[in-house]
Amino acid sequence: MTAQSLLAPAGFPALPALAGVRLAGHACGIRYVGRPDLLLAELAPGTTVAGVFTRSLTCSAPVDWCRHAAGKGRARLLVVNSGNANAFTGAAGTASVERTVAKAADVAGCRKSEVFVSSTGTIGVPLDDGKITAHLAEAHAKLSADAWAEAARAIMTTDTFPKGATRVASIDGVAVTINGICKGAGMIAPDMATMLAYVFTDACLPASVLHKLLVKGVDRSFNCITVDSDTSTSDTLLLFATGQAGNRPVDDAKDKRLADFRAKLNDLLLDLAQQVIRDGEGATKFVEVAVTGAVGDKAARRIAKSIADSPLVKTAIAGEDPNWGRIVAAVGKAGEKADRDRLAIRIGGVLVAEKGQMAEGYDEAPVALHMKGRDIVIAVDIGLGKGKATVWTCDLTHGYIDINGSYRT
Amino acid sequence: MTAQSLLAPAGFPALPALAGVRLAGHACGIRYVGRPDLLLAELAPGTTVAGVFTRSLTCSAPVDWCRHAAGKGRARLLVVNSGNANAFTGAAGTASVERTVAKAADVAGCRKSEVFVSSTGTIGVPLDDGKITAHLAEAHAKLSADAWAEAARAIMTTDTFPKGATRVASIDGVAVTINGICKGAGMIAPDMATMLAYVFTDACLPASVLHKLLVKGVDRSFNCITVDSDTSTSDTLLLFATGQAGNRPVDDAKDKRLADFRAKLNDLLLDLAQQVIRDGEGATKFVEVAVTGAVGDKAARRIAKSIADSPLVKTAIAGEDPNWGRIVAAVGKAGEKADRDRLAIRIGGVLVAEKGQMAEGYDEAPVALHMKGRDIVIAVDIGLGKGKATVWTCDLTHGYIDINGSYRT
Repeated sequence: MTAQSLLAPAGFPALPALAGVRLAGHACGIRYVGRPDLLLAELAPGTTVAGVFTRSLTCSAPVDWCRHAAGKGRARLLVVNSGNANAFTGAAGTASVERTVAKAADVAGCRKSEVFVSSTGTIGVPLDDGKITAHLAEAHAKLSADAWAEAARAIMTTDTFPKGATRVASIDGVAVTINGICKGAGMIAPDMATMLAYVFTDACLPASVLHKLLVKGVDRSFNCITVDSDTSTSDTLLLFATGQAGNRPVDDAKDKRLADFRAKLNDLLLDLAQQVIRDGEGATKFVEVAVTGAVGDKAARRIAKSIADSPLVKTAIAGEDPNWGRIVAAVGKAGEKADRDRLAIRIGGVLVAEKGQMAEGYDEAPVALHMKGRDIVIAVDIGLGKGKATVWTCDLTHGYIDINGSYRT
Repeated sequence: MTAQSLLAPAGFPALPALAGVRLAGHACGIRYVGRPDLLLAELAPGTTVAGVFTRSLTCSAPVDWCRHAAGKGRARLLVVNSGNANAFTGAAGTASVERTVAKAADVAGCRKSEVFVSSTGTIGVPLDDGKITAHLAEAHAKLSADAWAEAARAIMTTDTFPKGATRVASIDGVAVTINGICKGAGMIAPDMATMLAYVFTDACLPASVLHKLLVKGVDRSFNCITVDSDTSTSDTLLLFATGQAGNRPVDDAKDKRLADFRAKLNDLLLDLAQQVIRDGEGATKFVEVAVTGAVGDKAARRIAKSIADSPLVKTAIAGEDPNWGRIVAAVGKAGEKADRDRLAIRIGGVLVAEKGQMAEGYDEAPVALHMKGRDIVIAVDIGLGKGKATVWTCDLTHGYIDINGSYRT
C-alpha cells in the first residue's frame, strides 16, 4: 500500500443516502488481498442511465457491453471489480462479461441489459469471473444505503484515496441529490471519460436528457485532465437517475428548470476529475494550466494539453523550477497558431514573460515561492484571439517511475 | 558532469579529415566552465548548404537566421554555442545573432549570409554574445582539419557523450566522404530535425539537391526518434558540401549516380539520430518500435510514436516488465485505425499477444530475459494493411526526473 497522496483531500466526504440506491463493497480476492475489490450498486426500478466511454480503439470487453446497454437507457445493477481490467482478453473476455451479467441479472431479478459491468486493473490477463459470480449473492445481501465510502474503496487500483463528491440541486423547486464516486490515478488522459466514475441522482430525468448533460459536463471536467497523456482502454462514466426525488420529469436538456441541476452536476464532475489529478501517480503538485487568447477554444485546449503533457514542464514543476522556457517550447509544439512575440506567461499570477522575452523587471523570488506550494497555477495568453481552455494535471516525479516500473510484477 | 549513458558507444568514431572543412572547439565561458562551449567550422569557398529546422512556432532567433541563410545555399562559416539557446529572447535575441554574424563574417572574410549560427541550452535567458564575439578570432586561429571530436564536445549540453559518424560513398566512381556530428539528449521529438546536427561532405552537389536528399533522409531518421515527445525550439540540421572531392556535380536528387551517396547519407543520419536516443536523458534501454500492417505508412508512424511516447510503456521498459497491455493501450489511443482483435505483438521476437488476447502457450521467461537487455525490440502488427514505420526511443527512468527537475537551477 502506497502512502496517501500529498494532495489528498482531508477525508472522504459524507455522501448522504440517495433514494433508490443501495451499495456494497466485497472482497472476492481477484488480485488484491484483505480489501474489497467488488462494488455492487443496486438501482431502484425505473432508473434511467447514460454513459460516456473511452474512444480507445482497443477498448475493454466491459466497455463494449456498457456502451451497448447504455443505449437501452435503463439500469438496475452495477458490478465493478478492481485488480483486472478484462481488457485485451479476446473472446474469453467477452464470455466473462456475459457470465457475470447473466448471474447478476439472476441475483438482482432484472434484465441483462439493465446490468452494467466495469473492470479495472491489469490489462491482458484473463479475468477469473468465477470469483465474481461466486460472491454476487453474498454481496447483494450486504447492500445498504450508506456504503458510499466502501464502494469508492472497492474500485481503487493505484489510487491512494477513495474519491467521492456530493451536491444538492433544485429542479423546479424540488431538491435532488447528486452523489458521485470515481477511481483513477494513472493512464489518465481521458477522451470522453476517465477510468471509472459513477454518478447517481434521485432526480427524475429521461436517459436522453442525462446523456446530453453528461456529454457536456464531461467535456469541461474529465476531458480536461491529464496525468500522463495515456488514454485508458476502460474509461467509463455512468450517470444513473433513480427518479425518486419527486420532481416532474424534464424532457429537454436545455430547459431552464435544469439550470441548477446542470451547474451542480458539472461542479461535481469537475470535483471528481480534480480528485483523480490529486491522486495522480507520484503527484506532489496540483497544476492548473489556463490558456487564453488562442484563435479558438479547441486551439486553446490543444495548447493547454501540450503544456500539461510535456514531460519537461512536469519535471520542472516537480523540481520547483519556474522554467518558463519549457512552457514556451510546449506552446510551440502544440501545432496550433501561436506567435512567439505575442505570448504572455504568468506563474502564480506573476507576469514572467511577454512580447517574446522575459518580462521587464521580472523578479523570480515570488514565483519560486509559488513553485514550492502544492497548487501551481500557470496562465498563458496567446495574444491572438478569444479562445480559452483550462486543463488540470500534476507533476512528473520519481514516484510515477516507481509505481509504473513495477506495477505488474 | 553526469556519468556517461549506459547505452553509449565504445568511443567517438575516427572521423577523417574532409577536404574543405576545418574546425575548432573553444571555451568562451557562456555557462559551462572548464570545457569548450563554442564550435567554429570553416567551409572552403564554393561550399553549398541545405538545412531543415524545427517546425516549432516558438523557434529560436538562430533558427530564424539559418532558415533565411540556408535559402541562399552558400556557406563559409558555422558558429555554434552551447549553454544558452537564445530562444524566446525577443528583439535582444535577434540583435545578438546579428552581432555574432557580423563579427564572424569579418573574421572569416565572407558574406553575412554565408555564416550559420546555432545556440543550444537554456531557453529564455538573454545570450551574452559578447563572450562569443570576443573569442571568434582566437577560435578561428585554432582551426584544424582534425578537431571533429572536440567540435562534437563543444556543442554538448545534457549529452553524456559526443556524437559523430562517418561514411564513404561513391558518386560516379569518385569516392566522397560524409562526416556528421550532433547533440541532443532531451526535448527530443523532432519534427523536421532534432536539436543540432551538422553533416559535412566533400561531394560537389548543388544546394537544391542537398535539400532534397536531406528532407528525405531526415524523415526516416531524426523524424523517427523520440525521447520525451517534447519538440525543441532549436532543432537544426545543416548539410554542407565543400565540393572538393572532384566528382562531377549531379543536378537531380533522383539521379542514379547518387544512389550510393543517398544510401550512405541516410545511413549516417540514422546513425546520428540513434546516438541521440542512446544518450536520451536517463536512458538505460534503447528501444525499437516497429509497426507493420497499418492502413498506411503515416498511420504506422503515428501508432509507433504513440507507443514510443507512452510514459506507461517507457516506465514498464525501465522496470524490465514485458507489460504488453500498455502497448495495446498506446495503440488504442493513437487515433489511427486499429482492431483490437487483429493486433499481434512481439517483444524480442517472441509472439506475446494476437487475436485480441495473450498468445496461446505464451511463455514469459524468454521475454523477461529480453527485457533485461540493453536493446529492446517491440514489433506490432496491426493486421489491417501494408503501412509500416519504425521509431526509436528509450525508457523513462529516475534519471530523466533527476536531470529535468534540476536542469536550470
